Amino acid sequence: MTEIKDKSLQDYLDELASSAPTPGGGSAAALMGAQAAALTSMVCNLTIGKPKYAAVEADMQTLLQKSEALRITLTAMIKADVDVFNQLMAAYGLAKTTEQEKSARSQQIQAVLKEATQIPLDCAKACAMAIEQSEEAAAKGNLNVISDAGVAVMSAYAGLKSAALNVYINTASLKDRGVAEQKLAKLGLILASTDVKAEEIYQIVKNKL
Amino acid sequence: MTEIKDKSLQDYLDELASSAPTPGGGSAAALMGAQAAALTSMVCNLTIGKPKYAAVEADMQTLLQKSEALRITLTAMIKADVDVFNQLMAAYGLAKTTEQEKSARSQQIQAVLKEATQIPLDCAKACAMAIEQSEEAAAKGNLNVISDAGVAVMSAYAGLKSAALNVYINTASLKDRGVAEQKLAKLGLILASTDVKAEEIYQIVKNKL
Repeated sequence: MTEIKDKSLQDYLDELASSAPTPGGGSAAALMGAQAAALTSMVCNLTIGKPKYAAVEADMQTLLQKSEALRITLTAMIKADVDVFNQLMAAYGLAKTTEQEKSARSQQIQAVLKEATQIPLDCAKACAMAIEQSEEAAAKGNLNVISDAGVAVMSAYAGLKSAALNVYINTASLKDRGVAEQKLAKLGLILASTDVKAEEIYQIVKNKL
Repeated sequence: MTEIKDKSLQDYLDELASSAPTPGGGSAAALMGAQAAALTSMVCNLTIGKPKYAAVEADMQTLLQKSEALRITLTAMIKADVDVFNQLMAAYGLAKTTEQEKSARSQQIQAVLKEATQIPLDCAKACAMAIEQSEEAAAKGNLNVISDAGVAVMSAYAGLKSAALNVYINTASLKDRGVAEQKLAKLGLILASTDVKAEEIYQIVKNKL
């Protein structure tokens, strides 16, 4: 089976639109994050080596390394969301005739749900990093492509808010409320530090156009 | 040459990140819009035919037709942005030795710039429609996949704000200020009616999780 990142944009969109359960919003969130990282890399690549931007050359080189590493992480998350969804469906599909089966099924569902909560939480974290990275691209990047830093921040922000929805869904089904509250608290911190930030970065870009 | 929608997600992201001038933020905006339409279609497809949602069956059928038509429009815009960028680069590359050449070049640049402004404006309009469509999906769709309506609205919103940046850039270079102001006024209307709307739809979804 073709891995999702190797599918064409058209096939990806067709499968997203279909009644097939995957890919879904979790993969879409990761793709928006990966796209944001790619756009920050683009701004770096079109700034590096330009005499006019020699003063920020070293910063852009460092930023490019970070944004490319983040892009790899977020691209892998497009598939991770599909994988954990399939694991969750498999757990829900376990036998539940005897009491022993019911108990084993419930334990397996809860174990996979923890993983299914962690993956969008990691995606939200990575999208928050993509927002931070877009800020440096917006502040120092080549003015000719500065709008791409603005698209990067919006894409990362949409990825973050989308990933958050998947954290909310999966924590709602977690019986271990301690773990659930801990994950929600972490998400709250991520959202609090990036919600306003994203709009600020967008305005920085808009004012440079 | 492979058309952009037939490229793999990985190749698309690699090319976006590279120093190649296209694809850029304009294509990313259209992709986010297309992704939003696809997610609304997914919610429809997973609501249609379910006895529990028989009351909204007809509405979901109608919405699906609209979201699929919009998805085709937005998918085509991924390429349209690349094409008009190439036309613009070709116009800037025209000979400018004689006065006659300079005048012809300037006229050609201005003609392409009008087109290059209209394309992201159309993309912004289409993303605004994707936001509206996600609202109906969020209001009536299968609760099991309602978060996908929330991802749809964020994706469409990011596409809209991203397309807006490209309208700002290209209108800034337009010498015909009448046309520029007209396009900016149209964009202002689109943004005014959707900025708050997107957050409202996101909250509707969040409250249903």
